[in-house]
Order: sequence, then structure tokens, then C-alpha cells
Amino acid sequence: MDGLAHYSSVVAAQRVGMEIKKVPSTERPDYYIDPEGYGTAIEETISETGKAPALALLTYPDGNYGNLADAKKIASICHEYDVPILLNCAYSVGRMPVNAKELGVDFIAGSGHKSMASCGPIGVLGVNGDYAETVFRKSPTNKNKEIELLGCTARSATLMTMIGSFPEVVKRTRNWDNEVADARWFSGKLEDLGLIQMGDRPHNHDLMFFEAPNLYEISTKVKKGRYFLYKELKARKIHGIKAGLTKYFKLSTFGVGRENLSFIADSFDEIIQKYE
Amino acid sequence: MDGLAHYSSVVAAQRVGMEIKKVPSTERPDYYIDPEGYGTAIEETISETGKAPALALLTYPDGNYGNLADAKKIASICHEYDVPILLNCAYSVGRMPVNAKELGVDFIAGSGHKSMASCGPIGVLGVNGDYAETVFRKSPTNKNKEIELLGCTARSATLMTMIGSFPEVVKRTRNWDNEVADARWFSGKLEDLGLIQMGDRPHNHDLMFFEAPNLYEISTKVKKGRYFLYKELKARKIHGIKAGLTKYFKLSTFGVGRENLSFIADSFDEIIQKYE
Repeated sequence: MDGLAHYSSVVAAQRVGMEIKKVPSTERPDYYIDPEGYGTAIEETISETGKAPALALLTYPDGNYGNLADAKKIASICHEYDVPILLNCAYSVGRMPVNAKELGVDFIAGSGHKSMASCGPIGVLGVNGDYAETVFRKSPTNKNKEIELLGCTARSATLMTMIGSFPEVVKRTRNWDNEVADARWFSGKLEDLGLIQMGDRPHNHDLMFFEAPNLYEISTKVKKGRYFLYKELKARKIHGIKAGLTKYFKLSTFGVGRENLSFIADSFDEIIQKYE
Repeated sequence: MDGLAHYSSVVAAQRVGMEIKKVPSTERPDYYIDPEGYGTAIEETISETGKAPALALLTYPDGNYGNLADAKKIASICHEYDVPILLNCAYSVGRMPVNAKELGVDFIAGSGHKSMASCGPIGVLGVNGDYAETVFRKSPTNKNKEIELLGCTARSATLMTMIGSFPEVVKRTRNWDNEVADARWFSGKLEDLGLIQMGDRPHNHDLMFFEAPNLYEISTKVKKGRYFLYKELKARKIHGIKAGLTKYFKLSTFGVGRENLSFIADSFDEIIQKYE
């Protein structure tokens, strides 16, 4: 799996007793996943264990930097070795158009509570027909019950909220180009103020990671210390930033809109000017 | 596991690749689980495989007849062979007082959406301290994440509804003696009308299974056929019975109260008199 994978991918692998090999990303500031890294990892696995990995996994995008790796190329490389690939789309399915067939992946997982406006725990799983019989195999004794789902799929509020919001979720994915434009615009605004955006540049996703050496510098001098930023933002009714953060933070511009993003960027400008 | 186990116990065992041995119940009308059956099943497993089962399971009560087997004795027998025992309390935790320590069981599972007035999927699991480290083992790489919970416990509406209803759920378990008295009273009323209650007699749970040879007999003669009962009950604003059922049905008297139960019993009386 990619070196940027969410912890839940790691824990899921540990749960079924799989060994994990990470495909490393490059270092700061890009955190780029080179598709060829998958080929290398598979070849290493074959030479170490005598067989190819059971599954490859790519986080699309990763949850820290919002990097969208070249899934299509990675899938193609994995398939050269007959390794099936799972795309973890927790931060994409429900936000942007994703087509598992076009990307050529075998499995695609989406998260209801992360990007599909549902109340968790709920998710969606797409499986290439070749693997459907394995993944959704039925119980030999209870012939209409799927073993891997413990015979029982999603229910109740989790399901109803997903059904309820689904039409709106589909609709919003059609606005993705505007979302990316907003994200890039906002990133540019913050960089003009001296912050540095990590990851893909230009950025292709609403999720972004910033380093703010100037805000950190201020925090070391002012009376309220590292809580100054949280307090200044709160005074402007901007919520969401973790109290105490100044140096690094990740944020999403999804659905915020240009006007609100503009207000946030202006607020950062004001705060920086006030203390510098 | 007991021969009356819910399908989900079977599927869960199949999911982890366990072989299942059933402890049979007696036949109609009692469907009684003899505690000694657990000793026999364990001894058979040892003689067939050379080792004792990894786990024993008892459904307490079972979901069809509402029979409460002698869990304490069964636990004691299992422990003679060092076999841990899981009590499936989907139909008891949240309805009646259940004390895993007093019963001497190692694991106890309750269902949020079955008996705890929560919206599913959610449940509770109690684990004897000896096994807590195994069941709730943490990831070696993500040290605050439980592997078997995929690092992520219940959330959102499922959790909030459980928290919200919990005080009321606790309170209602204190009324259990009255619930059992109501169930027995209702069972007696239906038996006076010619229906036959299966399972424990006198009954110890609100969940009951009835055979209704007289209603079935009517259904073979009347114009509306087997839907007559559903329609007659619906006309009296009694809902819940599956359309088309006449010969066998299970029901629960939980929380219905003597007055409503009386109305239901009188309605059955009326319907039977009308057609006989």
C-alpha cells in the first residue's frame, strides 16, 4: 500500500494477518507516489516470499495532503503482476467523479461518513465482477446471507441518511471542476501570505496541507502562545481548526465557496498583519 | 453452539473458518437445550479432532421460542473442559437483567437494534478480563487502535440513539417480572382459544412461538384464504403479523401492557368465533 495510507488500511490488513509493504512517497514538500514504486514493491515481495502480494492498495487521495496519485498507471503496473488493486476512495467517492472501470481498479471503497453526507458507520464497496463471487460469497448453510457481511448489511439511520443525501451527493460531484478551482485559488491566496502548501501543485483536490512558518513564529512570541490563531479565528467565527495548531494544518475547501474562502484568506491576512 | 442459534452466529463462525457443532434441542413442543448436551458435544469434538472447541456459544434466549436455557450450568460444564463460552443476548440485554459474572460466562453480546432501543448497526460486547487483551488487542503500529474493531468504534446516530435511550432501557429491565407475568397471562389466554405455545412452559420471556391449528383450519376454508387473519387483525388496527401467516407465528409481548394484550386476545377470540 501507499506510504500515505490511512491507519484503517493498516489495521484492516493486520486484522486478517497480512504483512504490509509500503510504497514510499517522496519527501517534503511533494509527498509524491511514483507509480513505478508499486512495481518495485511487488518485485521485492516476490523475491522475499516467492509470491506476489495478495492485494495492492492505493489511497485516492491520501487523507493528509490530498494527493491524487496516478491510479490508472498504478493499476496497470499491478496487473502486470496479476495483483488486484483496491482504491481507498474515502475522500473522493461522493466529492468528485471516480470511475473504477476507467481507472482499471478491481475494488473501490467509499466512506459514507467521510464524503457521502451519511451518518456512519456505513460505506460502499465496488467489486470487479471477477471477484464478486469471492467477496460476496454466500453461506453454505444460509444461502441468502453473505458471509463477509455477517449476513447483514447496513440498516436504519446509517442507510436512510445515505439514501436521503445520495441525489444531492451525486449532484455535487458534477461541480468538481469548480471545487478544484476554488482549492487552487485558496492555496494561492494563503501562499501569498507566506504559508506553504504541501503535496500536488497545482492541487487537484479540496483537501490540503499547509505549513505556516510565519504563524508558528508569531506563536513563539505572543502572550496567548500557540492558541492565538485559534482565538483569532474564533473571534471571526471561523471554526474547525484544532486549538493550539499553528505550524501545520490540513484543511478542506469543499463546498465552502469562493466568498467564504475569500473571507477566511482575508482573516489570515489581518491576523498576520496584526502580529507581525 | 445451541441448535436454536440465530443464523448470524453460524455465519460469524463461517467467516473465521470455524467448524460448527450444534448441541441439539429436544423436539416439538419444548425445544429444550439440555446442558449436558454441551459436555457431549465437547467430548465428541475432542475425540474427533484431538482438541476441545475454541469457543462455546449459547443463544439466550433463542430468537424463535424465547427459551432461556440454563446458562449457568452450561457455562460450568464448558469450563470443566476449559472451553470459554459466549452468550448471545440479542433478545435479553436491554429487556431483562442479565449478569454475565453471575452466570459465569466469558463473553456476552447484546444487540442495539434488537433489544436496546437503538438504531443499528450497533451492539455491546462484554469480555471477561482474561480475554480482554486478546479481543481488544491494539495495533502494533497504531497503538491506540483496536484491531478487531478496525480501529474505529461505533459513531454517529447509532451511538447517540444508544446513549439517548440507555437510561430508559436500564429502567425497563427492572420491570422484567411484570413482563414475564404478562407473557404468561397472554399465553394462557391464547391457549384457552385453542392455540398452542411452544418452548418453555411456564414461559420465562416475552418472545413466544405459537402453533394455531384452528386458525390454519379456517384459512383452508375461507374465501380470503391464508390472508384472512392478517386482514382481520388489520381491521382491528393490530399490526405486525406477516401477511399470510396463520399456522405458526412468533410474537413478543414486551412493553405492550396488559390492556393492549387483552384487546389482542379478545380480537383473536372474536375472529375465531366469527369463522368457526
